Amino acid sequence: MASWDLTISKELKMVSALIKENIASKEAMLTEIAEYVIEAGGKMVRPAVTILSFYSVGGKDVEDVVRFAASLELIHNATLLHDDINDGGVMRRGRPAAYTRYGIQNTLVTGDFLFTRAFAIGAKFESAIVDITAEACVNLAEGEISQRRHARDPTVSEEDYLGIIRRKTAGPISAGAKVGAILGGGSLEEVLALGEYGKNLGIAFQIVDDILDVVGNEEQLGKPTGTDIREGNVTLLTLHALQNGSRREAEVLAEIVRRASKDKEDVSRALEIIVGSGAVEAARQRAKEYGERAKESLGLLTTGPRKLELLKLVDYVLNRES
Amino acid sequence: MASWDLTISKELKMVSALIKENIASKEAMLTEIAEYVIEAGGKMVRPAVTILSFYSVGGKDVEDVVRFAASLELIHNATLLHDDINDGGVMRRGRPAAYTRYGIQNTLVTGDFLFTRAFAIGAKFESAIVDITAEACVNLAEGEISQRRHARDPTVSEEDYLGIIRRKTAGPISAGAKVGAILGGGSLEEVLALGEYGKNLGIAFQIVDDILDVVGNEEQLGKPTGTDIREGNVTLLTLHALQNGSRREAEVLAEIVRRASKDKEDVSRALEIIVGSGAVEAARQRAKEYGERAKESLGLLTTGPRKLELLKLVDYVLNRES
Repeated sequence: MASWDLTISKELKMVSALIKENIASKEAMLTEIAEYVIEAGGKMVRPAVTILSFYSVGGKDVEDVVRFAASLELIHNATLLHDDINDGGVMRRGRPAAYTRYGIQNTLVTGDFLFTRAFAIGAKFESAIVDITAEACVNLAEGEISQRRHARDPTVSEEDYLGIIRRKTAGPISAGAKVGAILGGGSLEEVLALGEYGKNLGIAFQIVDDILDVVGNEEQLGKPTGTDIREGNVTLLTLHALQNGSRREAEVLAEIVRRASKDKEDVSRALEIIVGSGAVEAARQRAKEYGERAKESLGLLTTGPRKLELLKLVDYVLNRES
Repeated sequence: MASWDLTISKELKMVSALIKENIASKEAMLTEIAEYVIEAGGKMVRPAVTILSFYSVGGKDVEDVVRFAASLELIHNATLLHDDINDGGVMRRGRPAAYTRYGIQNTLVTGDFLFTRAFAIGAKFESAIVDITAEACVNLAEGEISQRRHARDPTVSEEDYLGIIRRKTAGPISAGAKVGAILGGGSLEEVLALGEYGKNLGIAFQIVDDILDVVGNEEQLGKPTGTDIREGNVTLLTLHALQNGSRREAEVLAEIVRRASKDKEDVSRALEIIVGSGAVEAARQRAKEYGERAKESLGLLTTGPRKLELLKLVDYVLNRES
């Protein structure tokens, strides 16, 4: 666990326990695959944001917010299973992706199973919360389609890129923040402010993910760098290199993107071009800006230890190395 | 439309309109794939059972039951998209299966999208209804895993077979019947009776499906016969032939099942062996028995035109040719 989550480690353990309870099935394969992806250990950012948002507006009894956080994390894990099938991702959290081990079919069905269990929890909440969750899930599907539509396309715009990560990464984190605030009894202003916080934090989170995919430590990451190149996903860093690298280098990079090349030398060359263009520093700067916006979104919250943790979470997201 | 649904054609049109509304998306691909599978025209058995159950216990204002029926049909279509990917099914409702046209990835995400939209509708209902729906969905996932686990296995038992079709086909139909009765203001006895009706109708429905996969008219079916053989699914008919055919023929059939052979001659040979064993007549008898049980389940309902339609629906299911 990271340092920032120590103060809510009890709540996160409750979330984990509830998830464990909800992946039980008469069909052992479903539970095994669910455990396989979940026990590999996610960063639990979505539950953490949800719970800290809850406390930051004065929430007391955590039972409901823990249930919602578990539901959100189940949805997240369902999408990881399905996304890996879609992207052909081979490693996830330091292990071979589930579908490479259990087959596409079993893995696909396990994703559906986790969705169902998540919705069964989520459906018990009030209408506004159901709407926020459903919207986040629709955005996830739309973001995934949009990402596929723009894959291998070196002419994709920054706006398209931001549209994708807003829907795929920032949306669920923002939903968690909003629902945490609603369940904590926050005012409409507080709910909206925390939603903004979650959205900006989520964008920063994804940009850092993109950076780590270029210059991260493979052992810490639990997967090889260059995944985005191999999958044909154009990130903010690739965009920077395409726009700011030398014309020759930009052409080489564009060609590798177009082919979604899995060739080792191509991928190395692409990463070199990206690093050489100054994209890493530029992306760090952008991540920092979104981090600042996340912090500013909290302006109207009462200062206190819980707000401090939301601020610290931003720094953790910006500085994480895996 | 079949004759039995004429009296509720207005309600079924409302269901279709609501489905159309709910597959709208900013990502045109999602809507296109959803329309592709839905407009190919299902039999709408789940919505029909739901709405007839609602009326049979005295339900009046159809708005809610129409919403639930749309949700159930969206779930059904989501599972069709995912099941075709899983089974490698090439035809569906007279058209190439969606994934063969739009790719596995887009089709997988469209399934998730339909699930989400279905749950967004379903989550607005009372807790008991959410529980019934969620249980049906978990059963769908478990049934699919169980079917995969038993695929290509000629030693599978009739109990395993029934367990699979109970979860995959009968479960959602039964759920629709139960929820229809709840929304119609039925008593607990009526809800349970209609749940039994739906379960038995669903089993009969699936057995007829299995029969049509052996002796159906391919043009009417919209797909080639022998699909179960090619996919390695052991149906009630295959079981009959394995147990009642000559030893030599049973061995040939078992070997074809084990290989899930897609070879034309193998599939023809398997179908011949199945037909020759008397499996079609035996399965028709079993379907009829489940149909009778479905009718008997309605014993305590007040006799009237709506009950008559539920009885007629059984006959339609037993006699359908596609």
